[in-house]
Amino acid sequence: MTQSDRDAPDAPSATDTLTPPVFDRTFQKQFIDLLLWRRDVRRFRTDPIPKEDIDGLIKEACLAPSVGNCQPWRFVKVNDPDRRKAIRDSFERANQQALNDYHGERARLYASLKLQGMDQAPIQLAVFADEETEAGMGLGRKTMPEMLDYSAVAAVQLLWLAARVKGIGVGWVSILEPETVLKTLEVPSHWRLIAYLCIGYPEEDHVVPELVREGWQDRIDPAALTLER
Amino acid sequence: MTQSDRDAPDAPSATDTLTPPVFDRTFQKQFIDLLLWRRDVRRFRTDPIPKEDIDGLIKEACLAPSVGNCQPWRFVKVNDPDRRKAIRDSFERANQQALNDYHGERARLYASLKLQGMDQAPIQLAVFADEETEAGMGLGRKTMPEMLDYSAVAAVQLLWLAARVKGIGVGWVSILEPETVLKTLEVPSHWRLIAYLCIGYPEEDHVVPELVREGWQDRIDPAALTLER
Repeated sequence: MTQSDRDAPDAPSATDTLTPPVFDRTFQKQFIDLLLWRRDVRRFRTDPIPKEDIDGLIKEACLAPSVGNCQPWRFVKVNDPDRRKAIRDSFERANQQALNDYHGERARLYASLKLQGMDQAPIQLAVFADEETEAGMGLGRKTMPEMLDYSAVAAVQLLWLAARVKGIGVGWVSILEPETVLKTLEVPSHWRLIAYLCIGYPEEDHVVPELVREGWQDRIDPAALTLER
Repeated sequence: MTQSDRDAPDAPSATDTLTPPVFDRTFQKQFIDLLLWRRDVRRFRTDPIPKEDIDGLIKEACLAPSVGNCQPWRFVKVNDPDRRKAIRDSFERANQQALNDYHGERARLYASLKLQGMDQAPIQLAVFADEETEAGMGLGRKTMPEMLDYSAVAAVQLLWLAARVKGIGVGWVSILEPETVLKTLEVPSHWRLIAYLCIGYPEEDHVVPELVREGWQDRIDPAALTLER
């Protein structure tokens, strides 16, 4: 496969005669390392990320599965400082509200957590799902319409892994008022906010999630989450 | 990092002092191949998948990000032939309903598509989100409660990639009645069906999605889905 094939997921189906890849044990081990060392990053260096790198990540995200191949993901690069500030303010309000739900030691722990890196991350990327897209013609989402949103989530997940492969960190901020984000970014009202991502080079790498390190929530044994029927 | 470290995502934070991996250009290229050759598989060989392989995939899925580290994913291996048949019947009903929405040439095309591989796939795995989990203590989902479901979607996405790494195919069936699946599998009513997965060795590999090959929906240029604000 040539590099240009790789760069053209919409290449003609002649490419379908290519030999499928086989992933050897070296790749298999590194892939598990990738999953282990992904992380929700909240501490970023401020060095810029080249535009072609971000566009490359978006391109890889668009290789995600989507219901009926509807590709409902929409990406908004948030560059304007005033818009960034409005979204930062939305975080502050939502975070203060959330803090009010906790009491005692738990509230103190919550207040001590760093939950976003919006002040440092050089890139902020909002990801939406277009709830009214005609692409895919509704296939696969009559009984489970939420599949549209799940497809955009899949794209976020691929972007996240693709970033980590390149040493770039991603943090997903969900402590936000979605309506405020939509209005601030002047996107169509039928778009749904899926994710607000901070992206940049991480200050540090960790194999253990921050919320485990800080004592908020431990890992659960996968076997305890699996049933047979 | 030893193999046993790798197998223990809940290992003590001493492992956090390990050297983070660097992914070289060979891995970077293979990773893009992985994204390009993932596929929603509907044509499976019937050879069994070893239990340790499925359990390994579930373990890798559990390395997904989750809001507040709440790990809401729940996996149900569907083994019982009667339960499988009840879910297969649910697909038939939902698919017939969906077909009724299309007309003319589009209806003929829809009817010709193979949309699931439940009759051949040796493994059927239902994935749910536990809407009432106390893990994570609500962190990160006060203003966006849907983040809980999105976390389970992320786990499905990792399982899918991890399977493809091992040459195992995954097909996500969403043409189902979620209530029927819940009742058939006798899971708690506060679990939400996220995905019903057919898993097995694929009969064939493709770099072009089936719905593109069949003329249902083409790829969209990522640049057309990206805005700046």
